[in-house]
Amino acid sequence: MYSRARSAEAKRSRAEDLLGAARSLAAGLGGVRHLTLATVAESAGLHPSAIRRYFDSREDLLLELAERGWMQWREALTARVEGARNLTPAEIAEAVATTLIAQPLFCDLLIHVPLGLDGDVGLDRAFRYKSNAAAAHDAIINALTASGTMSAEAVRNLTTAALGLTAYLWQIGHPTPTLAELYALHPRLGHTAQEFEPVLIRLLQATATGLVTPR
Amino acid sequence: MYSRARSAEAKRSRAEDLLGAARSLAAGLGGVRHLTLATVAESAGLHPSAIRRYFDSREDLLLELAERGWMQWREALTARVEGARNLTPAEIAEAVATTLIAQPLFCDLLIHVPLGLDGDVGLDRAFRYKSNAAAAHDAIINALTASGTMSAEAVRNLTTAALGLTAYLWQIGHPTPTLAELYALHPRLGHTAQEFEPVLIRLLQATATGLVTPR
Repeated sequence: MYSRARSAEAKRSRAEDLLGAARSLAAGLGGVRHLTLATVAESAGLHPSAIRRYFDSREDLLLELAERGWMQWREALTARVEGARNLTPAEIAEAVATTLIAQPLFCDLLIHVPLGLDGDVGLDRAFRYKSNAAAAHDAIINALTASGTMSAEAVRNLTTAALGLTAYLWQIGHPTPTLAELYALHPRLGHTAQEFEPVLIRLLQATATGLVTPR
Repeated sequence: MYSRARSAEAKRSRAEDLLGAARSLAAGLGGVRHLTLATVAESAGLHPSAIRRYFDSREDLLLELAERGWMQWREALTARVEGARNLTPAEIAEAVATTLIAQPLFCDLLIHVPLGLDGDVGLDRAFRYKSNAAAAHDAIINALTASGTMSAEAVRNLTTAALGLTAYLWQIGHPTPTLAELYALHPRLGHTAQEFEPVLIRLLQATATGLVTPR
């Protein structure tokens, strides 16, 4: 067991260890569904009761992971399109989709955060999360608008569609154990569960194309 | 309090009463999030312990509501396009979106069912749900393909996008109390939460248009 972190820097470092442990656990469990503060603490070598010094609740920890996810998505996507000037809607859609696919934990959190952001999270914490997420979103929209042929409004609609399709298709593609067992017995029923990545890319490219087609 | 339903028909009728109570409660609470078997039983005038004679678990009841939702969506959508032969992709998308919007409980369940269909639901029950949902989905695809100019494959992609966008946008548009309070204080952060219906229609029409545009 670790001893208690005494300095502010030691506390931050310990919080990072815990976030790393949460990431590894979520990857091993196939999602954040079964993640608890107790298992995160245990996996980081901390007493379960001690994790409350770093995160107020499970939701607080998930929000922290989601906030980092927004920053990472912004960095990956702006790096991906940097210097480009004439990307087509289909190329922009592919960049959006593949940078999301590269962050499975963020894909998973896209639905868990809005469903769970409630009682266990204070207004101040919710405000910080939403403000940082909105700033990252705005930076993404600016970068995509500058790098291609879509208007800022069309890009905003495309990213909204990307968040929605990703949030849903990721969950469908990573079914609960009961559904996974059912799909193994009846593969026809699990058809859509196999195909998260190609379906997301294809649907998002269609949406991007349609968004720039005159009505 | 009701007495115990003794015949099979009385039991079916009691189960329908409970489903009706669940629908009313979900509408009043703004979603199924806070729905419990105990509150459903109480609201139908049944002792909390007695509801287990009709539904094995909360998940079993939600599955029953979702299954009815699929049937109702199939009926509403096939009725809506009946007799049509040349609907455009945008017209088909509008029919899909508006018939989903007309069923808020089904919109809400679109994400709660795949997230929650686990331990409390047996394989047989999951199989029955997925089979009936797939049959309704196939019937919808056939009706939409026959009524318009989109191919069956394009229609299937469109309905997948519709389910994903609806599942996500409905939750964003019906925020938790904490998020609703935050949006009241900072309207800019809640921008997307106001707009479930027009955003769904607009994005789905763009997707439909893109799905029929040659690459």
